[in-house]
Formats: sequence, structure tokens, C-alpha cells
Amino acid sequence: MILFNNDYAEGAHPKVMERLLQTNMEQTVGYGEDPYCEAAREKVRKACQAPDADVHFLVGGTQANMTVISAALRPHQGAVCVQTGHINVHETGAVEATGHKVLALEGTDGKIKASQVQEMWKEHWADGAHEHIVQPKLVYISHPTELGTLYTKQELTDLRAVCDACGMYLFLDGARLAYGLAAEGMDVTLADIAALTDVFYIGGTKSGALFGECVVIKRREIKEDFRYMIKQKGGMLAKGRLLGVQFDTLFEGNLYVEMGRHADRLAMKLKNGLKEKGYHFYIDSITNQQFVIVDNEKLQEIEKNFGVNYEKRLDENHMVIRICTSWATKEENVDKLLDVF
Amino acid sequence: MILFNNDYAEGAHPKVMERLLQTNMEQTVGYGEDPYCEAAREKVRKACQAPDADVHFLVGGTQANMTVISAALRPHQGAVCVQTGHINVHETGAVEATGHKVLALEGTDGKIKASQVQEMWKEHWADGAHEHIVQPKLVYISHPTELGTLYTKQELTDLRAVCDACGMYLFLDGARLAYGLAAEGMDVTLADIAALTDVFYIGGTKSGALFGECVVIKRREIKEDFRYMIKQKGGMLAKGRLLGVQFDTLFEGNLYVEMGRHADRLAMKLKNGLKEKGYHFYIDSITNQQFVIVDNEKLQEIEKNFGVNYEKRLDENHMVIRICTSWATKEENVDKLLDVF
Amino acid sequence: MILFNNDYAEGAHPKVMERLLQTNMEQTVGYGEDPYCEAAREKVRKACQAPDADVHFLVGGTQANMTVISAALRPHQGAVCVQTGHINVHETGAVEATGHKVLALEGTDGKIKASQVQEMWKEHWADGAHEHIVQPKLVYISHPTELGTLYTKQELTDLRAVCDACGMYLFLDGARLAYGLAAEGMDVTLADIAALTDVFYIGGTKSGALFGECVVIKRREIKEDFRYMIKQKGGMLAKGRLLGVQFDTLFEGNLYVEMGRHADRLAMKLKNGLKEKGYHFYIDSITNQQFVIVDNEKLQEIEKNFGVNYEKRLDENHMVIRICTSWATKEENVDKLLDVF
Amino acid sequence: MILFNNDYAEGAHPKVMERLLQTNMEQTVGYGEDPYCEAAREKVRKACQAPDADVHFLVGGTQANMTVISAALRPHQGAVCVQTGHINVHETGAVEATGHKVLALEGTDGKIKASQVQEMWKEHWADGAHEHIVQPKLVYISHPTELGTLYTKQELTDLRAVCDACGMYLFLDGARLAYGLAAEGMDVTLADIAALTDVFYIGGTKSGALFGECVVIKRREIKEDFRYMIKQKGGMLAKGRLLGVQFDTLFEGNLYVEMGRHADRLAMKLKNGLKEKGYHFYIDSITNQQFVIVDNEKLQEIEKNFGVNYEKRLDENHMVIRICTSWATKEENVDKLLDVF
Repeated sequence: MILFNNDYAEGAHPKVMERLLQTNMEQTVGYGEDPYCEAAREKVRKACQAPDADVHFLVGGTQANMTVISAALRPHQGAVCVQTGHINVHETGAVEATGHKVLALEGTDGKIKASQVQEMWKEHWADGAHEHIVQPKLVYISHPTELGTLYTKQELTDLRAVCDACGMYLFLDGARLAYGLAAEGMDVTLADIAALTDVFYIGGTKSGALFGECVVIKRREIKEDFRYMIKQKGGMLAKGRLLGVQFDTLFEGNLYVEMGRHADRLAMKLKNGLKEKGYHFYIDSITNQQFVIVDNEKLQEIEKNFGVNYEKRLDENHMVIRICTSWATKEENVDKLLDVF
Repeated sequence: MILFNNDYAEGAHPKVMERLLQTNMEQTVGYGEDPYCEAAREKVRKACQAPDADVHFLVGGTQANMTVISAALRPHQGAVCVQTGHINVHETGAVEATGHKVLALEGTDGKIKASQVQEMWKEHWADGAHEHIVQPKLVYISHPTELGTLYTKQELTDLRAVCDACGMYLFLDGARLAYGLAAEGMDVTLADIAALTDVFYIGGTKSGALFGECVVIKRREIKEDFRYMIKQKGGMLAKGRLLGVQFDTLFEGNLYVEMGRHADRLAMKLKNGLKEKGYHFYIDSITNQQFVIVDNEKLQEIEKNFGVNYEKRLDENHMVIRICTSWATKEENVDKLLDVF
Repeated sequence: MILFNNDYAEGAHPKVMERLLQTNMEQTVGYGEDPYCEAAREKVRKACQAPDADVHFLVGGTQANMTVISAALRPHQGAVCVQTGHINVHETGAVEATGHKVLALEGTDGKIKASQVQEMWKEHWADGAHEHIVQPKLVYISHPTELGTLYTKQELTDLRAVCDACGMYLFLDGARLAYGLAAEGMDVTLADIAALTDVFYIGGTKSGALFGECVVIKRREIKEDFRYMIKQKGGMLAKGRLLGVQFDTLFEGNLYVEMGRHADRLAMKLKNGLKEKGYHFYIDSITNQQFVIVDNEKLQEIEKNFGVNYEKRLDENHMVIRICTSWATKEENVDKLLDVF
Repeated sequence: MILFNNDYAEGAHPKVMERLLQTNMEQTVGYGEDPYCEAAREKVRKACQAPDADVHFLVGGTQANMTVISAALRPHQGAVCVQTGHINVHETGAVEATGHKVLALEGTDGKIKASQVQEMWKEHWADGAHEHIVQPKLVYISHPTELGTLYTKQELTDLRAVCDACGMYLFLDGARLAYGLAAEGMDVTLADIAALTDVFYIGGTKSGALFGECVVIKRREIKEDFRYMIKQKGGMLAKGRLLGVQFDTLFEGNLYVEMGRHADRLAMKLKNGLKEKGYHFYIDSITNQQFVIVDNEKLQEIEKNFGVNYEKRLDENHMVIRICTSWATKEENVDKLLDVF
């Protein structure tokens, strides 16, 4: 069985494992205050061209999302996101469990537009009863989105402008950022993201680490006492250096983006191969997640040897399946998968 | 200025005030354990034909909603309701502030259908990743709804059946219940509601009391330790007897429903009068809330002497306004309002 | 049976009832935005000599406490209070239910000292692991305390100084403030309290109102969006003018303090009478709560005709009981009570 | 610098690293549903002699504590623990952040007694105002405690009996369980713990794993939907098999207890050595944490080459320091440390 279900089926990139092994018996202080974390933080700041950013390492994505959001908001404020946003559908209400409503907007290609945010904000403040309504205060976006799509630099710039105008925060979930940064034809760099958001994170779990997300904070209010928040939400690893060692490795040279490039290239190979065979796609993605429409018979055939994810049933005979490549995907397996279509 | 904005513009029904005055200098124990509360509880149980129900008096609707919902749910569970549901839009995220997601469904005439609930439940459990998704566990409906509409007995029976089949709770918000029970042509009685729901409340604030909602609980798990919950959520009035005295008065004879009947009759008079004049309604309501479509010019004219609520802008020149009658509305004021249209 | 259990056994002061009755059938807008609330706010600001303060009316004390505290704190911060503090023992964990730890300090006569707060703050920041510990950020005191004692002006000034030095908020719970302001020999005025705290409230429930607490906010951060917070926590009364009318009456002339004076005078009469009879007191209170030590036999005798509260069992044969006078207490009843001792 | 500060200064036991490396490029499904987790669960159930227990793997201790506690309690209930309990002092209010008060009891040697729990429970229910007080529902203990002490089998049996009698849950935090199970002279086995508690966890982070705690649940109500809770609280690792692989290794043969034995033996060597030199101990611990009293001068000398933890200042010239051994401690380093005393 070859799994294309997701991008976290394997362990870590061999270089990451090597470093973990090398440093295994060293003694360091805990909770992210060791030299490996410090070195990794420095590398991340440099890669982001954000020398004043605060950089923290958390274990997972749900944790990162709820910790950032609850650090940023007062009790009556909510997080705006697209209907399909991870915090809205796939985190068992983790954000609500910290007391905050998720305010969902209809998306286009998995994204929300600056104009929608502005509209929501205007409507809120124009409503005479706005004090009876959750106040939109933070915009949560994913890049790539749950549908593999990417925000353009212009779209991010527009969101930034609206957030500035409305006194809102812009938070970017980069769980799959490697695959976004590496996507061919995409114009958004890590420095752009750091420049245009208030806080974002660089995903490790889905991009070569055993686990771990690197939260980069630029906004002063969110920076303040953030380590208390990590601890309270259960995200402060005792052996914090495990995260430092991993991100230090991922940001050694260009490894992080190279891994993304590998996955994106194979995803494009798959996409083009399937297009040639006449397959249709649910959405046009240039990153490592591809959403293909297959009929039931074909699906059964595929599933004899390959793992894929069900995204959505289109009709009785057709399903949208998600196929993921990753830093670990072997080209020969993509070829084998193409053969079966 | 004559206000038709809502049904809580005046104080309490004169009989309520009289009883409060009569009992004012009496000494009673606090926190709802006095004889007035006990008498009122007994009257409510009788009116509901629910001798085993637990009856509690809370100060307000938001409080009642969040206290019931947080008493009923475990942390990973959510409350299903219609998009326009009060808990979803007009309580500043009070339910989320207790940690629970509100799961909104598209409504028809402000109502949700049993089949929608069943569908959501099926989808949840059919999803391989359901543990990553908030579990639907309680269905919240309003009767009348925010749009003045009512559930039929069949609709309530169907919701009950689905909730039973799915292991879900049915919670009915009766903030305007008086106006629902009194509506001409409606077949749902207080006893029906008590028989078909797990928990519901009988609104006082909008129906003749100074303030206060009477929560009736039939389900054992929600009954348990409910008074702790009231206290914790800030809803336990020190001078609890104020609520007892009020509900004892409202349930003396048929006062509660009579007040509703008065308001509904005037609402129908208004509705018919406006229809005759050619006005159109946003929704067909038989209760005290009427949603009329007016053009900007007319709206300006109305607002010279009358208060109405803006419900929704339809287009540049048309607005849906809400006109409320109540137990306190004078017929002559309805006539005056009709005249201006 | 004559109740001395507490100061909320009766309804409201007759003048309050009269105003409620007079205004009962008037129509006003809801949620505290009516002219009565505005007038009351103005009177309160004047009485506090705090023209820039924000003034809000909430229904009850638990509500006021949790709303203020959750408005003031970020998630990792806690409220410092004395062990016997109301929020620590008698609110069913309402503050914790908003996510915040209550950090209890040993008290002296029901009070905490500025030096204790400073010590706790120092210890927190000196601890290398302070990010693993709840950060003390707000000091909660009651005046009078749960034991009827009062902070002196010097003590409040010292607390203010420590709070300023430590970047902490000072929050005063004045549920029984009338009895504190009126206490003979006490040097703390309403203006002092307004000058020395960041936020406090003036109790109505225990001092002549049917219900209601008046929150006065001076600190900018706590002011911000406070009405959203009231709504979310279930404390925004639809017929908000009920609170306005009541506080407008209480602050008409000197009624609020006069009621307190009445109660305090009777409490002193009781205290002196009991002292003469050789009774001992658990604590030296000059306000309306008196804590007397009685043996079991005497207690039984008292309870034949009088209601009192059990405060604490001292030994097998002795109990501390709490006797409360109030604005409503009749002098003849105090005499009767004295007779039985 | 040789660190004796804690038991998580190094990475993982070499066997753990070896297995992680071996399995690194395998593909498995995520979120703990892989064969490694299943195998580890089976081994843990066997070691616990608890074939019906539910076994879950979480990333860290704070996470495990708050997830279990919030899964077990309704909103008005609290967790009873000793003043020095980890959840009470060192988790930045993580339990409170889920809405629950921690009810602290004075300890003896870091432990609480069954009689104290019973007393608290009795007092709660005897109090006429118990609905205004957080209801004690779960007893949280650590074994070993924060002071290195252990509950005897009799003490655990007594706690079990009281919990049964009072309808309370017994939850044991075994973050350092390896060192408890291995302690010479201790009569409590893993099977005893599984038999006597409702839920407990077996610590990995401090006992040979890179990270991870293994939660064992016996009580039906806590079992129910627990995976939703893990996900919501941010504890569900995408590459869940990392936890499975680690615990499968720790429970291969007797490795888990052997590691504990190594640490305990060295701790005893240190203890005996220091006693011979005339040093006094703050508490009598037979596990890997030793609390020694040193004067300032000696402390300075020690800290030139060794890391130790400050536990408590005794007086101006004396400090209690904590010295930890672990599975990774080298005997030669203990000798070197002894030399410096």
C-alpha cells in the first residue's frame, strides 16, 4: 500500500533525524531556552527578514492556532476565516474552547477576499446592536489553503490594508508553507509573509519535521507574555530543543523550500499526467494537494494499492479525492499511481 | 414617539407590579428557595403537565441559553441551530464563551427541519475524521423564531424523533412563548412543548414580567446540579423571590397566554391593515413580530412618530422593518401607525 | 420569624418601588441606553467625583465580578484575593469558568495587605519558571469585606501604590458599599474609592435596590468594549432602565448612604448590647455584619424566632453566627433579638 | 557543566531513538491509529493488567492533565489536589483555562490523605450554600509527588475507598512513574495503580522518551469520546505513531522500570553519600528527586560545575536544592557531584 492520503505519513527528513541522533545525549535546559532553539530562531528571523520578530516553537497546528488566537483576542472578539478553514471545521472546536467564536465567510477557491473582511467589519459597526454581536478582530487565513490554493502577493497586501484600516490582526496558518513557498509561478516569499501579517507560522509537521510549528510574531500585543500562553495551552515541550534542532536543520541552507519544491514538482507531474488522461480537477492547485474527480469504479481500483483521501462526494457516481505528495514522496510511486488511472 | 421596536419597551404588567409591591417588605430566604418561587414552580409544572420537571428562574435570555447549553454539553460537543438563531448572532458569543461551537444550519422561514439535523448527524458520524469535528449534541430552536414563525406540532414531533434517534437534546428558547401559545391557528400547547423537548424556557422579559425566564428541565442529566450552574453563570438572583412573585402572577389563571393573545390580535390587525394597503411582508408571521417591506420615503415618514427596528436592507430603496406589538401595546397606537402607512 | 441572615431578605426601598411604579408604563429603548440610566450614570459620576469614569449597571454581584475580571485579564493572568474572598469561595468558580485562576492570600481580618501583594508579585517575577505560573495581574478586594471589616484610606493608598508599581489593576467589590461608606469612624469616601481603584462597583442588591450593581470603570483598557462583555456574560438587562431608575433613586440626595447609616447604627446597637451582656465577637466589625460567638443552647433558643447565618463552628459547643442588619431592619426587631440573648 | 536540574535534560533512551530511526520512512496513518500505537496500547494494557482500559498517547504532561480533567468534570466541578500539586502551581492555570477551579489541600510530604478528601467532601455537602461553592469531584495526585515521595498501597486504597464513597474520580499523574515503580521498598505496582485509579498516566517525557505521556482510562464516562478531547486540546499528534513507537519500546521487556531503577539507585547513592557527609534533607525521598539543604557558599561552589534546581529558600544562608537523577545519569557524574559537597 502506497499512501497519498496526506503529507505526514512518514517520519522526518533524514537530515532532521541525523541531527536529533547526534544531539540526543547532550544535556540542555528545557522549554525552548536552549542554544538549538536560539540558533533556529535566529535562522528563522533571517529567512523572514524580520530581525525583531519573536519566534516560538510549538508542537502542533491546532495548538498553534488556538494559542495565537487566544493570545490575540479579548473575550468578545472572534476570528474571521473561510468556511472551509481548518479552525472552523477540523479542530474539534479548539478555538471555541478558548471562548472565541469563529466567524466564517464564504470562500472562493478556499480563500477569502479583503473586500469580504471589510464588508463584515462595516456591517458589524453599522449595526446598532453590534455590542450583541461578536466583534471581528482577527483574520485567519491558510497559505496554502485547505484546497491547495495560494494567496497572491496582491491579495495579501489587500488583506493587510483592510486589517490596518479596521484595526484587525492578520494571522497566517502556514502548516503547509513549504509547499506554498516552493510553488512554481507563486510570487509570495517568506519575507513577504512576515512583512504582511501580524503573526504566522511555518509548518514543520507536514514539511519534513517529526512534528513542530514555528510561530513568528511581529505584533507587540501578541508578543507579550506569549510563552505563558504556550505553557497554559499545553504546547511547551519540556525537551524544547527537539523543536530547535529540527527547525535549525530545516532552515540550514534552503532545505525547507527544497523539500516543498520536490513535492510540488511531483504534484505537477501527477496533475499534468491526469489532465492528459482527461481527468478533471475540483480546483486548480499548484501545490502538493491535488483534488481529482474520479468515478466509483476507478476509485475502487486505485484503492487496491494506494491510499487517497475522500474530499467530497459530487454525485452518486463521482467523488473528489485528495492526493498529496510530500517531501518524502518517491517519483516512482507517482508513476505507479498515474499508471492506475 | 410611540415605540414598536420590540416587546420590552415598557415595564411589567400592572398585576405583576402590584404583587411586587404587596410583597416588597416581606422577608424571605434568598436564591429562589422562598415560597413564592415554590408556588410559581408548582403552577408552571401544572401548566406544562410535567409534574416531574425541574423549574428554575433565571434573569435573562442570554443567561438562560448559555447556562442550559453549558450544563448539557461536554467540551467537544456543539449546539445546532439555524443561521439566524439568537445564540448564533445576538449574544456576543455567549455560548462560545462557555467553550462550545454553535453549528449553524440554513433555515427556512427561520426554522430548521428534523431532516437537516439528521443529515448533519449522519455526516458527522460518517466522516472518518469525526473526532476532529465538533460533535452535534443539542438542537436549539426558538418558538416563535427570530422571524416570528412557529414550529408546528408535527415539526416538533419530528425533531423529537430525530433527537431520540441520534442521542441529541432538544432545547426550545421560548423568550416569546406567550406570543406563540396565543397565536390563532397554532396547534402547539405548553404541554406539547414540555412533552417534546428536553429543556425549554418560558420567557418573562418579553411577556409581561420586568425580567426573568423560567427554565423547565425534563432530562435527568441536565437537571443534575443545575443550580450550581445558574450560580456560576451569574444568573442566581439574591432576591430570587422577585422571579417567583412574577411568574406566580403570570401563571395565575391564564394571564400569560392572554397577554400573548392581546399582542397577537393587534399584530394581525396591523398585518391585515397593511395588506389591504398593498404592503408586502418579508415573511408570513402570525405572532407579534411583523416584518414589512417599506421604501425609504415611507420609512422616514414612519420614523417621525414611531420607533421600528431595521431588520434588513433589501435594495437601495427598500428596507424590511420589524414592528412588534406586545402585551402593553394600545390598540389606538396600532391605528395611528396604520394611518401613517 | 424575623430574619437577620442577610441584607437581602426584603425587596427594595419604598422610594425605589415608587419610581419603578411611576415609570412602569413608559416606553424606553432597552439595554441601558435610556434616559434613566443616563441620569443615574451622571449622578454616580458626580458622587464619585469621577467625570470621566464609565458607569455600567449589571444585575448581580457574581456577574459583576466575573465580567470585570474577564474584561481586564489576558488568559494567563489571575486575580489576587484573600482566601475568604467572595470570588474564591462563594461564586461556584465563576471566575475560573472564564478561564482565570484566583490566587488566594492569607488574610488578616478579612483583608489583604499591600505588602502581601508586592511579595507575591516579586516572587512571581523572581521565579525562573514564572512563565509556568499564573501571572498576578489584578487585585480584588471587598469593602466591606466578607467579615464586615473595612480598608482604611491608608491601606487603599498602599494597595494603589503597589498596583501602580507592579502594573496591576485594583478592583473593589462594593456589594455592601453603603454600609462601608456610612460606618462611623471610617475615613474612606466614594470619591476616595474612585480615585484609588481602577474599577469598582456600588452594590444595589444588598443596599436598597431590588437588584443591581453599578460598575464604575476608570482604567482605559477595562473601559474598552465593556458593553460587549456585559452582554456576553448574560448581564445586559433588556429593560435596562430598571437599573437606571433604581440607581437614580438611590443617588437622589444622600439616600444610598443614609440607608447604610441606618443599618450600621442598628448593628452598633446590637454589638454594644451584646458586649454588655458579655458576648464575644469573632471579629471587630463596624458595619452591618456582626459575627458573634454563641453556644449551642443559646443558638437553639435564638433560632426559635430569628434567622441568623452560621459562619463557622469554633468547637463542639460554640458557633460563630453572622447577624446582618440592613436598610430595612426595624429597630424594634433588634431590641427583640437583644432580649433573647 | 553537568546538569542535575531535572530528568529531561537529554533526549531519548538509545533504544527509542533506534526504533524511531528504523521506522522513519515507513508510511502509516496518522493520529494514533497506526499499528505501532496499537501494539503499544496492547503492551500497556498487559503491563497494567487492565485489558479493558482505554489507552491514549499525548504529547506532554500539562496537556494530559487538562485534557483528562476537562473530560471528566462538568462546569461546576473542581479538581482536588495538594497545594504543591503540579496543576496548582506549575501549569500557568491550564486547568482553570478549561473552566475548572483547582481546590488545594494542605499536604504532608507532598501528599494528601483520604481523610482530607472526605472532610472536604463532607464540608461541601453540609454547607447550606454548597451550590455557591465549586463541587469537589476529582482527586488529582502525583506519584511520585513533586517532592519525590510516594503513596503507599494502603494510602491509594484509602483514597480509592473515599472516592467511591463520595462519587469522586481518582486521577494519578505519573509523569515520573518509572521512578516510583522502581523505588526500592515501594509496594505499589502498575497493576495496583490501574486497579485503584479511574484514570492515570505513565510519563514518557521524564522517563526515556523524547516526549509523550500514556493516558490509561478505566472509567466509562471519561473514556467516552476522549479522542475528541485530545484533538480539541491540541494533544493529537499528526504523526501519532511517534508516540506508539516510543511507548512500544519503553514497554518492550522491562525497559521502563529498569530506567527508573538506574536513576533511583544513583539517587540513593547520592543521598547516602550526602548523609554520611552530614547533609540534611528537606524531605525523605526514595525516588530520583532529592531535596538537600545547602548553605550559600556550598551552593556557589556546586554551581561552578553542576546544574541544580532551587526549590526553596530556608533562611538567609540556606537553600533547599533539588538534585535529579534520570535514566540517563552517569554514575561517574554522581561521584563527581558527591566530591564537591
